[in-house]
Amino acid sequence: MPSISQKGLHMPASPIRKLVPYSEEAKKKGRKVYHLNIGQPDIPTTELALQAIRNFDQKVIEYSHSAGTISYRKKLTEYYKKHNIHITLEQIIVCTGGSEAILIGLQTCLDPGDQIIIPEPYYANYNGFSISAGVEVIPIPSFIENGFALPPISEFEKVITPKTKGIMVCNPNNPTGYLYSKEEILVLKDLALKYDLYLFVDEVYREFCYDGKKHFSVMELDGLDENIILFDSVSKRYSACGIRIGCLISKNKAVMATALKFAQARLSPPSIGQVAAEAAVDTPDSYFEEVLKEYHARRDVVVFAINKIPGAFCPVPSGAFYVVARLPISDSDHFCQWLLEDFQYNNETVMCAPATGFYSIPGKGKDEIRISYVLKVEDLRNAMKCLEEALKVYPGRTL
Amino acid sequence: MPSISQKGLHMPASPIRKLVPYSEEAKKKGRKVYHLNIGQPDIPTTELALQAIRNFDQKVIEYSHSAGTISYRKKLTEYYKKHNIHITLEQIIVCTGGSEAILIGLQTCLDPGDQIIIPEPYYANYNGFSISAGVEVIPIPSFIENGFALPPISEFEKVITPKTKGIMVCNPNNPTGYLYSKEEILVLKDLALKYDLYLFVDEVYREFCYDGKKHFSVMELDGLDENIILFDSVSKRYSACGIRIGCLISKNKAVMATALKFAQARLSPPSIGQVAAEAAVDTPDSYFEEVLKEYHARRDVVVFAINKIPGAFCPVPSGAFYVVARLPISDSDHFCQWLLEDFQYNNETVMCAPATGFYSIPGKGKDEIRISYVLKVEDLRNAMKCLEEALKVYPGRTL
Repeated sequence: MPSISQKGLHMPASPIRKLVPYSEEAKKKGRKVYHLNIGQPDIPTTELALQAIRNFDQKVIEYSHSAGTISYRKKLTEYYKKHNIHITLEQIIVCTGGSEAILIGLQTCLDPGDQIIIPEPYYANYNGFSISAGVEVIPIPSFIENGFALPPISEFEKVITPKTKGIMVCNPNNPTGYLYSKEEILVLKDLALKYDLYLFVDEVYREFCYDGKKHFSVMELDGLDENIILFDSVSKRYSACGIRIGCLISKNKAVMATALKFAQARLSPPSIGQVAAEAAVDTPDSYFEEVLKEYHARRDVVVFAINKIPGAFCPVPSGAFYVVARLPISDSDHFCQWLLEDFQYNNETVMCAPATGFYSIPGKGKDEIRISYVLKVEDLRNAMKCLEEALKVYPGRTL
Repeated sequence: MPSISQKGLHMPASPIRKLVPYSEEAKKKGRKVYHLNIGQPDIPTTELALQAIRNFDQKVIEYSHSAGTISYRKKLTEYYKKHNIHITLEQIIVCTGGSEAILIGLQTCLDPGDQIIIPEPYYANYNGFSISAGVEVIPIPSFIENGFALPPISEFEKVITPKTKGIMVCNPNNPTGYLYSKEEILVLKDLALKYDLYLFVDEVYREFCYDGKKHFSVMELDGLDENIILFDSVSKRYSACGIRIGCLISKNKAVMATALKFAQARLSPPSIGQVAAEAAVDTPDSYFEEVLKEYHARRDVVVFAINKIPGAFCPVPSGAFYVVARLPISDSDHFCQWLLEDFQYNNETVMCAPATGFYSIPGKGKDEIRISYVLKVEDLRNAMKCLEEALKVYPGRTL
């Protein structure tokens, strides 16, 4: 029997999916499970996208241009302009979700053995893409006490080696919800220029900012055109995760020419998804206002409920739709599994993601969980009640 | 300015797209260009798929299961059963086109530096996926004289080393159209067992067999469950290239568990594409009968026309919708570019793919072109007339 690849052996299982068998078991027992483990919003997809799909009238569903249709990329430049991001269509490669954009970006810029620095906790799938590309992730710690703000410049400089080729951040952040300020983005700029590094920035949650704060895009920076690789996706923006449309953006011509070769090898991004995403660009501001109001309320429910629990702590993040909360536990994997296997309150329980899967430094995240606040306020209240009651009786409680 | 990756530098540009700027120029001059360079059929997409898209009534376009929806995978098992391929839904991972299936398959099974043997000429994008995975392609020659039949076992054995981990074939073949016989597949089986190799088989043209011949799938083999990785796609089957739905199939449990981790990292294949592909499984046989009749006629037009040209030779392939033809030329890249830049007949010209892009052994394919017979018979006749007239006046003609 031929062997499996080393990459395959090192590939981590998805931390947000590994408890799925336990939630299935809980449901078989007749329990209601609140799914706060995964970033799948319940918000309706923008109507314009749905209409475009229903009105799809091509007779042959053809490959598109490998970088995406001209019309969609043109439309995207309008979208970005509204966000103070000034690019041409040649600076966009439409990808199959933000996921493919990241994979192509890493393959284009980094060789096996190269290193990228990522503040942790970070989006777990960055590990998967890095393993695929043979790239080594060098984590540096961020801390719950200051809401997971950008680590100081000295923390980056401590780990920079000749193998360091880039820094990657997600802004607003998954899993912490932290929104990097303009000042923090400027710190990253200085680092990128000083050490000649790529700056990979994942801005798929750009729209999701609260408390009146505004997102500052890395593309708004001057003097860093050769270094910036932007990853984006329409999945969260229009609640259309399943159309698998994202993009890679850069003003670095060599990067774009090389990324296009990777894009050509896989022929094209999904055609119908592009039609839907193009229509979605005209989504009225009122859609986002309503969605943001809803998420804002949800965030407040979750943060308030957690901070009311004795021994628990949750910062108040200003972006995305996640929080990482510290609980009075010492083994978040065990706790999340126990919630599904052994706990119920009014025949309900809650599924969260152990934060361990978002850390690479061993031992970190054992007293933290990630919560995706992707359910209605009423459901979130019930879910938080479960969490509160669970912590009263959890045998592994530490405080 | 940070450097581009070595992988990126070695990534070949798409051989079927590199002449696109010249065809654009020709069109600007008012010339009609017959596109025989690319495998984009003009056949209408199966109506059931189009209907399913127009009837799409979900309110939230969600991620699907990373391996594809249960309902689509169930439906796929029915499809395969009709083709004498008996699998369960756990043996299928739905991918974003056959392209992603190949990339995930290689990443799952092979380590950087490992080798796979591929008879050449072969589908050019195998190079791209191999470079992405860090895998080395070892080409062995097949020959136009016998229609590009499977090379003898001795040719494989000549290049097998401790680094050899697999053999890859496409059946029916792109670019040659060759349909491997059951006897040839059995040769591959013997090799895979004797040397403990993976057998990667790309069967995306399964339906496209002519002259009453039947496709023999590698999945019909007994005793090779651990070795076989099948790549498939609905792109050609239903003329739905743009929905980007394919799959990876294997009965090897370790392979499937590992491939699923790669699939989870990219979250899910396109949701609407899966809905369309699921509906398409019920496409009536009459659709395929009509399509096959059409392609059969097209193939005959192309093969007959080429063999009528003095000094040209084209085998009569029994599958797919490509031929590789030998012409009285010594530089097929120059010839194909010349056709677009300098030639016209009745203000028309033809775009073909130089066969050089389908070979890895230096110097091969310089007197060959690949023709995709994806246009209507009347257009193909005109295109072949262009080719015939072009060879009368081409300054680089060798015979």
